[in-house]
Amino acid sequence: MIYNRVALIGLGLIAGSMAYAIKRANLAKEIVGTARSAETRDTVRRLGFCDRVTDTAAEAVKDADLVVLAVPVGAMAAIAKDIAPHLAPGATVTDVGSVKRDVINAVGPFLSDAVDFVPCHPIAGTEHSGPDSGFAELFENRWTILTPIASTTAEATQKLRALWEGMGANVDEMDPDHHDLVLAVTSHCPHLIAYTMVGVADDLQRVNDTEVIKYSAAGFRDFTRIAASDPTMWRDVFLSNKEATLEILGRFTEELFALQRAIRTGDGDHLFDYFTRTRAIRRGIVEAGQDTDAPDFGRGTKR
Amino acid sequence: MIYNRVALIGLGLIAGSMAYAIKRANLAKEIVGTARSAETRDTVRRLGFCDRVTDTAAEAVKDADLVVLAVPVGAMAAIAKDIAPHLAPGATVTDVGSVKRDVINAVGPFLSDAVDFVPCHPIAGTEHSGPDSGFAELFENRWTILTPIASTTAEATQKLRALWEGMGANVDEMDPDHHDLVLAVTSHCPHLIAYTMVGVADDLQRVNDTEVIKYSAAGFRDFTRIAASDPTMWRDVFLSNKEATLEILGRFTEELFALQRAIRTGDGDHLFDYFTRTRAIRRGIVEAGQDTDAPDFGRGTKR
Repeated sequence: MIYNRVALIGLGLIAGSMAYAIKRANLAKEIVGTARSAETRDTVRRLGFCDRVTDTAAEAVKDADLVVLAVPVGAMAAIAKDIAPHLAPGATVTDVGSVKRDVINAVGPFLSDAVDFVPCHPIAGTEHSGPDSGFAELFENRWTILTPIASTTAEATQKLRALWEGMGANVDEMDPDHHDLVLAVTSHCPHLIAYTMVGVADDLQRVNDTEVIKYSAAGFRDFTRIAASDPTMWRDVFLSNKEATLEILGRFTEELFALQRAIRTGDGDHLFDYFTRTRAIRRGIVEAGQDTDAPDFGRGTKR
Repeated sequence: MIYNRVALIGLGLIAGSMAYAIKRANLAKEIVGTARSAETRDTVRRLGFCDRVTDTAAEAVKDADLVVLAVPVGAMAAIAKDIAPHLAPGATVTDVGSVKRDVINAVGPFLSDAVDFVPCHPIAGTEHSGPDSGFAELFENRWTILTPIASTTAEATQKLRALWEGMGANVDEMDPDHHDLVLAVTSHCPHLIAYTMVGVADDLQRVNDTEVIKYSAAGFRDFTRIAASDPTMWRDVFLSNKEATLEILGRFTEELFALQRAIRTGDGDHLFDYFTRTRAIRRGIVEAGQDTDAPDFGRGTKR
């Protein structure tokens, strides 16, 4: 038992999965949850992964020793302002936002010295969202990054680390700005690019939607999984990690133009060398246990 | 039994999978195979998915009533020239290249009127390549596109269609140029973009390879699967489908710049609307049975 009462603000994929994982490992005495939408609250009351579902965030955080902000990044400031007067002294506030500097700037100013703020980002997710998309195994063998700030106590960071490890995650600590750059590379830009490619396919008049769907197995469908992620969450990610995203996009278009020129001029060696280099990273990811080596992710292929 | 003797020229993922699928459904009396590399031929002799492995393509095609060119697109012309004098009258020649117009231009001129040419492209594959990567189920419920040319007889097309259906595939017929455009959208551009993004990540000095690998679960790793595909095959695809690829890349960068501007100017509505639209295509693909709806492709997630 690491915490007495955990309050989950926002009840989507991440909060739901946390609730299941916390219960499975018996990491908290009580889980209280709340969400802005009455429909979501009703769904969670029916699913039962929270011990109590309250109608307001202010009620949810009452006497909680851990408060988890699990809402889109753009909604963090309003929630922080809302709950701040109701936080128990000594409580830890954390979040699960995909961007860290902007969340720190948005949430930090509302929190008194009596509470600890431990910004956090679990690197895990699926293309599904909403209160019925969570499951206990989501964080297993995935990394969770904590980005403590100057005022965070070591004890608060340690307790939160223990919670994540109890849910099956590996935990790292990192500077918030470095986090935002790393994630721009491994997550934010890949998402924007996937959204773009799917949008282009959707737009083309000469290639109709049926054809795009029928012949998607040749690469395109992997992009559509990413591009099916929650639109509100991703809008906020790009708006709040603007600088790093635009920097990496700049690098991306630079490289893309170089490959485009190689195609136009028929420079096969440039293409071959580039495509050979990128294989090594894949091997590293599979060896690190961050993906499966089953061909085609094992989609219906019985080998 | 649809064919008497099938000759597979090139023994990688596609040819190997064809051999297993043909044997499983008993679609040919004999399968003869050959490959340029002695190492590949030895591997296939050991694996045994061909009844005979010959050292030359000329030997392999002798008395075959179906000859399958399963080599990179850039190697098609040389192979066609090599085998042409040895083809049995009445034989059907087909290929499995990812580009059709260029293969028709490369192979067609070498074939006499005594043989039928049925250009073909099975829309199936994995990130693995080589003689030991094939398996019988690869084509199941995937689409195979035939692009017959003016001189192709209806009978030859029909027989090849029956072979592919016997291997579990759905079969479509299409104009070669339209095929090349559709595949530029659903396959060639997604691959180039994935290669680019993985290359950018590999290049960045401030984000080291370990971090890219550890935190890849947030989107990036799906790109690395695509970018682990065979470099020779993909070099040839881009060089031989230059026009359509460059056209779709142009559309892609146009859209990417629009989204980039929306990020820079903080236009959240533009981003939200774009990200909402792309969800529908994903639903279509899952409903058409071309992908699994298991979260995260079911990677280790037990729901």
